[in-house]
Amino acid sequence: MLVVDAGLMFPDEELPGIDFVIPDYRILTAGGTVHGVVLTHGHEDHIGSLPYLLQTVSVPVYGTPLTLGLARRRVEEAAGSPKMTGIAVEPRRPVQIGPFEVEAVHVSHSIPQACAIVVRTGAGAVVWSGDFKFDQTPVDGQPTDFSRLAEIGEAGVLALLMDSTNVERPGYAPSERVVGVALDEIIAAAKGRVIVTTFASNVHRLQQVFRISAHHGRKVAIAGRSMADTVTIASDLGVLAIPRGGLVPLEQARNLRDHQVTLLTAGSQGEPLSALTRMATGQHRMVTIKSGDTVIFSATPIPGNEGMVARTIDNLYKHGAEVISGSAVHASGHAYQEELKLMLTILHPRFFIPVHGEYRHLVLNRRLAVAVGVPEERTLVVENGQIIGVGPDRIARAGAADTGSVLVDGLEGVGTVVLRDRRQLARDGVLIALVALERQTGELLMEPDIVSRGFVYMRESGELIEESKKRIREAVARSRGRGVTEWGAVRSAIREALGRYLFERTHRQPMILPMLVEV
Amino acid sequence: MLVVDAGLMFPDEELPGIDFVIPDYRILTAGGTVHGVVLTHGHEDHIGSLPYLLQTVSVPVYGTPLTLGLARRRVEEAAGSPKMTGIAVEPRRPVQIGPFEVEAVHVSHSIPQACAIVVRTGAGAVVWSGDFKFDQTPVDGQPTDFSRLAEIGEAGVLALLMDSTNVERPGYAPSERVVGVALDEIIAAAKGRVIVTTFASNVHRLQQVFRISAHHGRKVAIAGRSMADTVTIASDLGVLAIPRGGLVPLEQARNLRDHQVTLLTAGSQGEPLSALTRMATGQHRMVTIKSGDTVIFSATPIPGNEGMVARTIDNLYKHGAEVISGSAVHASGHAYQEELKLMLTILHPRFFIPVHGEYRHLVLNRRLAVAVGVPEERTLVVENGQIIGVGPDRIARAGAADTGSVLVDGLEGVGTVVLRDRRQLARDGVLIALVALERQTGELLMEPDIVSRGFVYMRESGELIEESKKRIREAVARSRGRGVTEWGAVRSAIREALGRYLFERTHRQPMILPMLVEV
Repeated sequence: MLVVDAGLMFPDEELPGIDFVIPDYRILTAGGTVHGVVLTHGHEDHIGSLPYLLQTVSVPVYGTPLTLGLARRRVEEAAGSPKMTGIAVEPRRPVQIGPFEVEAVHVSHSIPQACAIVVRTGAGAVVWSGDFKFDQTPVDGQPTDFSRLAEIGEAGVLALLMDSTNVERPGYAPSERVVGVALDEIIAAAKGRVIVTTFASNVHRLQQVFRISAHHGRKVAIAGRSMADTVTIASDLGVLAIPRGGLVPLEQARNLRDHQVTLLTAGSQGEPLSALTRMATGQHRMVTIKSGDTVIFSATPIPGNEGMVARTIDNLYKHGAEVISGSAVHASGHAYQEELKLMLTILHPRFFIPVHGEYRHLVLNRRLAVAVGVPEERTLVVENGQIIGVGPDRIARAGAADTGSVLVDGLEGVGTVVLRDRRQLARDGVLIALVALERQTGELLMEPDIVSRGFVYMRESGELIEESKKRIREAVARSRGRGVTEWGAVRSAIREALGRYLFERTHRQPMILPMLVEV
Repeated sequence: MLVVDAGLMFPDEELPGIDFVIPDYRILTAGGTVHGVVLTHGHEDHIGSLPYLLQTVSVPVYGTPLTLGLARRRVEEAAGSPKMTGIAVEPRRPVQIGPFEVEAVHVSHSIPQACAIVVRTGAGAVVWSGDFKFDQTPVDGQPTDFSRLAEIGEAGVLALLMDSTNVERPGYAPSERVVGVALDEIIAAAKGRVIVTTFASNVHRLQQVFRISAHHGRKVAIAGRSMADTVTIASDLGVLAIPRGGLVPLEQARNLRDHQVTLLTAGSQGEPLSALTRMATGQHRMVTIKSGDTVIFSATPIPGNEGMVARTIDNLYKHGAEVISGSAVHASGHAYQEELKLMLTILHPRFFIPVHGEYRHLVLNRRLAVAVGVPEERTLVVENGQIIGVGPDRIARAGAADTGSVLVDGLEGVGTVVLRDRRQLARDGVLIALVALERQTGELLMEPDIVSRGFVYMRESGELIEESKKRIREAVARSRGRGVTEWGAVRSAIREALGRYLFERTHRQPMILPMLVEV
């Protein structure tokens, strides 16, 4: 076995309290040898679950130097900090990993040193496109390696697994350099401080901010740990070139005049704890937003984050800042339709499997492949956990693996029962009915006690609480009347009587937990 | 006093369990006479809180017939069904409401019979634009009443309160008729069933679906109560013209061949209980999605709903349907920049107050007004609850009203304490520690009991629970050792010891509720 990428997913509002979602890696211990993990690039959705993978199987990790640097940071800061053996790979230089010959091919993306991966097996070559675009004018002067991809296509590709993110967008993704032009115009015109927020890992974007700021006599200061970490790792590896004196500590930036300052900060997704969100709500220790500030959102909201981003922008406006966002100050790192077609045409694979997108993206990407000439029966849309069998003439589902997602909250996974309870608690809260009964007779030893949270405000609900206690007393009496007192039956009687009464009175359905004490 | 519109807001993920958010109407009883409510049009965000307003003050409701019809349905289905006295108004025919002369002026919007409202007072005329656009080719042949607006502008407008929704969009909003052209192409090409989802209240859109379906030999069936209600009200009032035999019950549509059927359904926002969402998840009683179905999302997601809509689209694809969404099959009902400028130019108000949008929209709309010549000092950006004072030469904040929002859950409002508890419960659940103590000595009478929901799965957490019980015993013993047993102190000791232990072990922070029984 060989693993390509080890990512994580961020939860949506359906998963309350979940920090992130990772694959269930237990399948890797079910038999067979895992020879290694190959990483295409250093984004969270490709490296974020590496600590968990390495806790399950201890195998070497292959990737380009920047990818390995970011992966190592991720592993070290994870709970338990598993050991990571990194093996640096260079594009165009195949390495042998167990029975597989693996070659990285440089592609442009919103992070440097991103790669497509070619895995040569006995049955033929399988290509992962990785996340890519065909940027003809990349900031680092290194476009996608067309020549090598063309050679690989010419030599024959058995199967291609290709990025589907932007399959709904016609044409070509704009070049990263276009964003630089827009940023330059805005920063040139700004009279006060400029605050740029983007994904911490977008080193190309950071590079442009450093270059443009220096050009306009501004020094850059960094707010937020993830952004600072990336700048350190990337500049140590020589991937990010910081102009001499161009980076100052945040404390020092406060002594500069406003037109001499650019702040680089994470929080482009409106994350509640990020530096930018704290600035927007007036809670940042060192930066207070004021009239004259220009805040540039150099990123688009990930689906699901639109609400948080909108709230952050509103708060910035309320503090007097000017806010600039939208497509002019961001370029996607993922190929649009014409680029996807180009990749298909260059590699002309025998079989095609769309990956990396919502289900509708996979369907549309398959359609795109058929449009450029891949026969439909040689394409396959699969979901997580499905096993794909590929032979010289045939592609088909070959069963499903016993796998799934692990919903991580804190140090461990959370199951469906816990999640269902959280959803109910979030909706209508909890009501606890404490009942002390005489062991022999089942008689009430004292007035029932009620505690409620997230249901009604107890101090203002005296009558509701009193009436609830009455219903509890009646329920206990009724269960006693039936002869032998069964604690289970008492519990059900209380739950049922209270549930009915509370719904009638409030149209809410709190979780009702009877707690019985027998003395 | 005169009230213009009585809307509600739908909650975001920050407000768990809340059904909707309405204004706190208690201010209407604080003194002075409320002479009536004038409704601009029949959308939920303009009529949804009318039942609550009428429960607070019993006043007549003014609006066009369709607006009154929809408002009446809303009031009748609300809890307590307050009495509503509706007074129909006709555009260009002013009515006297107490000291105010009120005139409705027809505007085009995504619902028929929408109006701008002119209120003539002793100090001058105040105009609410209502939600509007300048559709030159509206489906019902009734464009915004330019001539009357021009007369009103010529006569002099003291203050204009104008819609800000689309102030970020340059140019003009596309005409509703353009959507008809796109729908016609799609429906003409469809081989199987066509399922169209849109806002139930978008009567123009429904009209187009009926017309186009009839043209292509399809009958329309309706799924979902809100859509059926609108069709009934609108066709009773003659606002919606249903072709003869063009509407069939859903049961009957099942006997037609697929290419003879168009289904109209609510659920364009991915609402969990809507007919379309149930179809997409295979849970609709009468409609099963299948290969060959074409589903048209003739609406854009309201910010915050993107995730739910995306999930619904994915589910439809998984069942084999083709899904069409995006700007070609929807047109906004709100004015774009050039239309907003046009309204400002026609009315050339002395003072300008942007309304109806996020804070950033208000700021940008104010900027737009300044760009077309309103002096900046004659504009004012305000937030909910602020009182605006307008004199012949001056506009200014004149204090703030003691008002706010009511978060409705079930039959009543919910306060901040309850909400804060819900958020904590959603994140990490609850743990209840039941402790029975001997009244005199404070000794434990029995092993502590623990119940937890939404925190860990209790059946798999035996050791954690046992260790927690041990911590409780220790905490109780420690509190006793301090002399007189104070129940409050015992509670705190348990909460603290458990909180620390559970966070260390799980990195989660459940709500901890010690329940003490003394016997």
